[in-house]
Amino acid sequence: MAGKGKVCLAYSGGLDTSCILAWLLEEGYEVVAYMANIGQEEDFEAARDKALKIGATKVYIEDLRKEFVEGVVFSAVQANALYEGVYLLGTSLARPVITKTQIRIANAEGCDFVSHGCTGKGNDQVRFELGYYAIDPSIKVIAPWRIPEFFERFPGRPALLDYAAKKGIPVFQTAAKPWSTDENLYHISYEAGILEDPNVTPPKDMWKLITDPEDAPTTPERISIHFENGKPVKVVNKGDGKTCTDGLDLFLYLNHLGRKHGVGRIDIVENRFIGIKSRGCYETPGGTILRAAHVDIEGLTLDREVRRLRDQFSQRLSEIIYNGFWFSPEREFIMAAVEQSQQTVSGTVHLKLYKGNVIIEGRESAISLYDDKIASMDIAGGFNPGDSDGFIKINAIRLKAYVAQKTKVTGSGF
Amino acid sequence: MAGKGKVCLAYSGGLDTSCILAWLLEEGYEVVAYMANIGQEEDFEAARDKALKIGATKVYIEDLRKEFVEGVVFSAVQANALYEGVYLLGTSLARPVITKTQIRIANAEGCDFVSHGCTGKGNDQVRFELGYYAIDPSIKVIAPWRIPEFFERFPGRPALLDYAAKKGIPVFQTAAKPWSTDENLYHISYEAGILEDPNVTPPKDMWKLITDPEDAPTTPERISIHFENGKPVKVVNKGDGKTCTDGLDLFLYLNHLGRKHGVGRIDIVENRFIGIKSRGCYETPGGTILRAAHVDIEGLTLDREVRRLRDQFSQRLSEIIYNGFWFSPEREFIMAAVEQSQQTVSGTVHLKLYKGNVIIEGRESAISLYDDKIASMDIAGGFNPGDSDGFIKINAIRLKAYVAQKTKVTGSGF
Amino acid sequence: MAGKGKVCLAYSGGLDTSCILAWLLEEGYEVVAYMANIGQEEDFEAARDKALKIGATKVYIEDLRKEFVEGVVFSAVQANALYEGVYLLGTSLARPVITKTQIRIANAEGCDFVSHGCTGKGNDQVRFELGYYAIDPSIKVIAPWRIPEFFERFPGRPALLDYAAKKGIPVFQTAAKPWSTDENLYHISYEAGILEDPNVTPPKDMWKLITDPEDAPTTPERISIHFENGKPVKVVNKGDGKTCTDGLDLFLYLNHLGRKHGVGRIDIVENRFIGIKSRGCYETPGGTILRAAHVDIEGLTLDREVRRLRDQFSQRLSEIIYNGFWFSPEREFIMAAVEQSQQTVSGTVHLKLYKGNVIIEGRESAISLYDDKIASMDIAGGFNPGDSDGFIKINAIRLKAYVAQKTKVTGSGF
Amino acid sequence: MAGKGKVCLAYSGGLDTSCILAWLLEEGYEVVAYMANIGQEEDFEAARDKALKIGATKVYIEDLRKEFVEGVVFSAVQANALYEGVYLLGTSLARPVITKTQIRIANAEGCDFVSHGCTGKGNDQVRFELGYYAIDPSIKVIAPWRIPEFFERFPGRPALLDYAAKKGIPVFQTAAKPWSTDENLYHISYEAGILEDPNVTPPKDMWKLITDPEDAPTTPERISIHFENGKPVKVVNKGDGKTCTDGLDLFLYLNHLGRKHGVGRIDIVENRFIGIKSRGCYETPGGTILRAAHVDIEGLTLDREVRRLRDQFSQRLSEIIYNGFWFSPEREFIMAAVEQSQQTVSGTVHLKLYKGNVIIEGRESAISLYDDKIASMDIAGGFNPGDSDGFIKINAIRLKAYVAQKTKVTGSGF
Repeated sequence: MAGKGKVCLAYSGGLDTSCILAWLLEEGYEVVAYMANIGQEEDFEAARDKALKIGATKVYIEDLRKEFVEGVVFSAVQANALYEGVYLLGTSLARPVITKTQIRIANAEGCDFVSHGCTGKGNDQVRFELGYYAIDPSIKVIAPWRIPEFFERFPGRPALLDYAAKKGIPVFQTAAKPWSTDENLYHISYEAGILEDPNVTPPKDMWKLITDPEDAPTTPERISIHFENGKPVKVVNKGDGKTCTDGLDLFLYLNHLGRKHGVGRIDIVENRFIGIKSRGCYETPGGTILRAAHVDIEGLTLDREVRRLRDQFSQRLSEIIYNGFWFSPEREFIMAAVEQSQQTVSGTVHLKLYKGNVIIEGRESAISLYDDKIASMDIAGGFNPGDSDGFIKINAIRLKAYVAQKTKVTGSGF
Repeated sequence: MAGKGKVCLAYSGGLDTSCILAWLLEEGYEVVAYMANIGQEEDFEAARDKALKIGATKVYIEDLRKEFVEGVVFSAVQANALYEGVYLLGTSLARPVITKTQIRIANAEGCDFVSHGCTGKGNDQVRFELGYYAIDPSIKVIAPWRIPEFFERFPGRPALLDYAAKKGIPVFQTAAKPWSTDENLYHISYEAGILEDPNVTPPKDMWKLITDPEDAPTTPERISIHFENGKPVKVVNKGDGKTCTDGLDLFLYLNHLGRKHGVGRIDIVENRFIGIKSRGCYETPGGTILRAAHVDIEGLTLDREVRRLRDQFSQRLSEIIYNGFWFSPEREFIMAAVEQSQQTVSGTVHLKLYKGNVIIEGRESAISLYDDKIASMDIAGGFNPGDSDGFIKINAIRLKAYVAQKTKVTGSGF
Repeated sequence: MAGKGKVCLAYSGGLDTSCILAWLLEEGYEVVAYMANIGQEEDFEAARDKALKIGATKVYIEDLRKEFVEGVVFSAVQANALYEGVYLLGTSLARPVITKTQIRIANAEGCDFVSHGCTGKGNDQVRFELGYYAIDPSIKVIAPWRIPEFFERFPGRPALLDYAAKKGIPVFQTAAKPWSTDENLYHISYEAGILEDPNVTPPKDMWKLITDPEDAPTTPERISIHFENGKPVKVVNKGDGKTCTDGLDLFLYLNHLGRKHGVGRIDIVENRFIGIKSRGCYETPGGTILRAAHVDIEGLTLDREVRRLRDQFSQRLSEIIYNGFWFSPEREFIMAAVEQSQQTVSGTVHLKLYKGNVIIEGRESAISLYDDKIASMDIAGGFNPGDSDGFIKINAIRLKAYVAQKTKVTGSGF
Repeated sequence: MAGKGKVCLAYSGGLDTSCILAWLLEEGYEVVAYMANIGQEEDFEAARDKALKIGATKVYIEDLRKEFVEGVVFSAVQANALYEGVYLLGTSLARPVITKTQIRIANAEGCDFVSHGCTGKGNDQVRFELGYYAIDPSIKVIAPWRIPEFFERFPGRPALLDYAAKKGIPVFQTAAKPWSTDENLYHISYEAGILEDPNVTPPKDMWKLITDPEDAPTTPERISIHFENGKPVKVVNKGDGKTCTDGLDLFLYLNHLGRKHGVGRIDIVENRFIGIKSRGCYETPGGTILRAAHVDIEGLTLDREVRRLRDQFSQRLSEIIYNGFWFSPEREFIMAAVEQSQQTVSGTVHLKLYKGNVIIEGRESAISLYDDKIASMDIAGGFNPGDSDGFIKINAIRLKAYVAQKTKVTGSGF
């Protein structure tokens, strides 16, 4: 009895979406389950069996890791995207990849509906649904955690466990952790539970991906990252010579190194799109290394004024991505300029990783804007010091006029 | 014979400004030497004797440390000022304090001229002179390193040493280092010499202030920083209970801790105001800790939209300061807004310092914008999940219209 | 029988809010009617009688014209606020004045609820309610046009007329116009009805306030507007010598002149906050003159860089005001900077009004930044042409480096 | 005797550049004269004879009108470029076209030098020379008005007239006007002389291009402008049916109409790049009409958020162009985004021209973002009013939190 139509459900294999799957069936929908492999730690085949056992008509498991890294993460690297000066947008960046494929499957399967397990207070519901609507304006969304029949029936974890038991849904986790996580190959996030007090220090055993800097190796490791047009194209370990050139490979290798050396943990209070402040802890090992290197190679290869304009739009782009507007004209607008700017961002950065530190040790580029002769303090290098004289005097004209005015208005100058 | 008039010279005690002092006298000027104590390591009394011995009429040594920290550094902290995403502006911030007092002395001494030892290619000449002209539009500037008679006579260090020997100027340094430095209580900079190749890794013994993270203590140290209106008002060491409340004291104590724990080194290629790229290495121990803490307490206490506007103006403010426009209407304009925003930035941040890492462990405020009930994933807290539904649908309207248009224009949607 | 509590209703005297008043009573609320006099053409005493006749417990009629002009309109003038490059924000600016007093009355009367007659698709509902919630976070809002019981019962004007007849509500208008209007002393807006086709030219008889330029006097009229700190303090008619110095008086006089000379009509497609495009026609006579004059006096008295920063702020401020966020930290943040900037904006602008044109004929200020000697093409005025040489050469350094890089990357320069 | 090398001189045919030509020859240079036809009123053949008579080796007269309109002016239209909110950048936009061809000729002729007749205080010297250096970093510039030997020898017009008489240079003008002008097909500027007092009203006979609105026809004229990708592709006169589709033709036709109907005069105090305020009067007939139409069609076809970002970019772009940085990476950066945005800016605007007014009467587009059903106040159009409820409540969350905080900090809310 699937009289209400067909739903493509973003399925994680966990308790929540398993109960949602069962509930949708109970409500009279036919359900196609969809799992995106974006690099999270997961037993996909066990999850497939579980979904089928609960009653999904079909289960799609899509490996989106390469698309995620090369199509989205590297664009964010080009833009130096960073939310509120601190957060690398790990969850936000995964959403466009997931939603795009979910709509493709929904359309292929003839689904009228898509569904997800996001809560009603968070950012993810917005990101999922804006993506859905932008890609397919006619799609209908079922968000159970915003439907009173659902959220009043399942006011907490015990109610879900009861329902799972009743429906014969296997529950793998023996004990739930006192926080929530979201993981992909770019990052893992921790929030809610004990973290809801922003003054509580996260327990040491919460952090899952990255070695505590205090436990990281006492010997640093040195690498080089090669960029072309603002995207990484090669990573070389200067110690053992290991070299990666494939986008996904090199990213996973940077993850491995960041995790080993304690690089990429943060703990912040951030501003959600819906106007609430929330506390999040994040581990983004490879992304942290990559951003430091990209910012550095831009120092050598990107024009000053372009950098300033780009930096203003990076801030706005980060908000756009955080708020779920990846599929929007404003993202296209900004990225057109960013891509133009990255034509010159090619070169190599040399780095040292040590106990949480990403230390730049040098950089080089065949198309550097750095001119050692003109920069030199010791030689003229085609530079006439007298030019500075005129430059300063012209720049002072405006200030001299202002201080005279200020003195008239306030009675004193600076 | 001082027929050309009286000069107030910004004197450092080093070889360059000692030769400039002698040269100005030789040229027929009377010279008043002025040394600003902004926290640099210096034997001020020895420098005084030296200036008098060379022939200065008078020597002023002014302790500007408190004014520097409380009047300038803390304003930069309020604004999260950071040049090109990395550099804390240590040299730029000292200049306004130095120039203001130099003009005060020049006026008191009836000097027609001020002079400095900055080179003709750098930022500092601009910062000094824009400050001079803004404070006293009628002042005249003598910049010997831009005067052919001077710079052609002294093409390098040997010529200066010869001149010093001839003039009986004592030279303290036995061997010059292969780089230049500029130090104050906020930071030390290293540039020029071997650093002119941006791919050369700075030698370990170059770094003067901060312990190499590899040599820093293996035991972390925990502190709290208390803010009022965006300025630090108390630092407490949670281990030994040491507490500082005076602005200068607490800043020097943060410096001590940062230096001990390897916090605050960077190595960058930056864009000078005059359009040249240059490579600089910087150590800013206390400032690095303070900025991390201030950014964090703003997460808890500053409104999202104010933060975004402020962040755009922080970028511009950093350029203004870097380029030497501290005494300008544009700085006053931005700071008026920043000060308005900091009225709510009060609270305490708890931090751990460990081998180069500044790790936030929690934060609290009596005027927090964080509402744990509304932020909670487990309880409703006055939040109706159905509201998100309308919020998302309204936000999607624009995207749906756009994708229809995009499809008409390009033949496909997202 | 008022068992549901007490409501303070923003009452206009028109059909919609009269029916809402009757309906609220029918639903079991006690209703206090509130009319804001913000300069609209209205028979307030007739409206008072009508509200009392329908059943309002009390009717407040508040003259907010002076507060509107001096507290809000003049702030917008200081900021050169303009939405989407064209629209002077006439409706948006009135809302804060109305809501603030409405909440004051609601609190004084012990009302739990406030209500208004705004539709569910427009901007005004947002502006009213964000104002309510910001001023009194505990207030409850009744928005009948978003309540299905109401809007389904009254699907169009005939249903409202029926209800009015049934309830004995007098209806003044004999025939409704095929568009809607909103009027205050700053402007009148026209939208909806036949204007919903953006390609329909508004009929000549729609425009109510301003003489059609084709019918305006063939003789121009000349005035002077005097500003202090960016606000107008005196208007003088150079023909007849008429002089106004009171804020409200001078604004109403500028309105009179603008209406007479055909100044201040626009017709645009604008972007509503809720993501819909809509077409609006507006008449803003005095505001159009005032903005032209203020922009002009800033040319003489405001520093270039402050102007640029302020212009960026102005765009954002206009969005803030348009979207209903007058009572917000972001408006306070921006206005702090704007007020700082306006300290120097004092002087007099001379204008000619003629058939839709506002023609600047000259300007003067005792604290002008304009220096005729330095600006002169004929005399040196303390300017050394050689300084421009250095200025240009320094500015070219960056471009020369870039074109070399561009040539390497793309194979050709500019 | 041309021992010093070969110069390509930007030659206008006027007194200044004729004297410069003679002086360069006298100084020992060989001179190739170059005249750009950018639509100014000029007898080019007479000027050619004059240059040859004075002693130019060769004279190039290049018709750059099409390149100017289609390559530069229409890009500015796409961006809505406007300097300081008022000025359409008529002089600035012509410079890139002139300099690019000048360098092409200089290279073809083997010139080591280029020269121009710009003064040492203005913007044009900067625009010419930054263009020269960006296109050919190795070019050398001779700017006589900044060379003491030249400007001290010719302190005013009488000295130039003497020199011209001595050199046998014919002087066409019998009496110089008490202001300077610069003309091209986009605009004419007036500055200096009697205009140096910003409070002097320009005399009626100064204005050369545009009919005084008071003398313009009393009958309005109606036209349509068709845009594709933000550029005008067709202009139709609705009265007589005249139609233009070629870029240059339609622009010249808009000029004709603007001049006839008194459209496009301004009088401002602007900020020069070198920090001086100056007073300029401008007539830009076609450009004023085109900008009004382009802004309007964007209302119908450009996404709200893209428009906001683009508007910020437009302000910066206008500064870039005004300051002479057309050939720069920052212009390329911004234009990449602008071009992306203009993909959807296609449609037709209907306008009325009348005595200085450009009145929009309607607009239409096959790819409009305007949806009359959803915009309608009368029908639901797929819009659920309840959605606004959630939208407003979510937007209020942040304000409610802020007012509670504000009350704690300041003792009162809004």
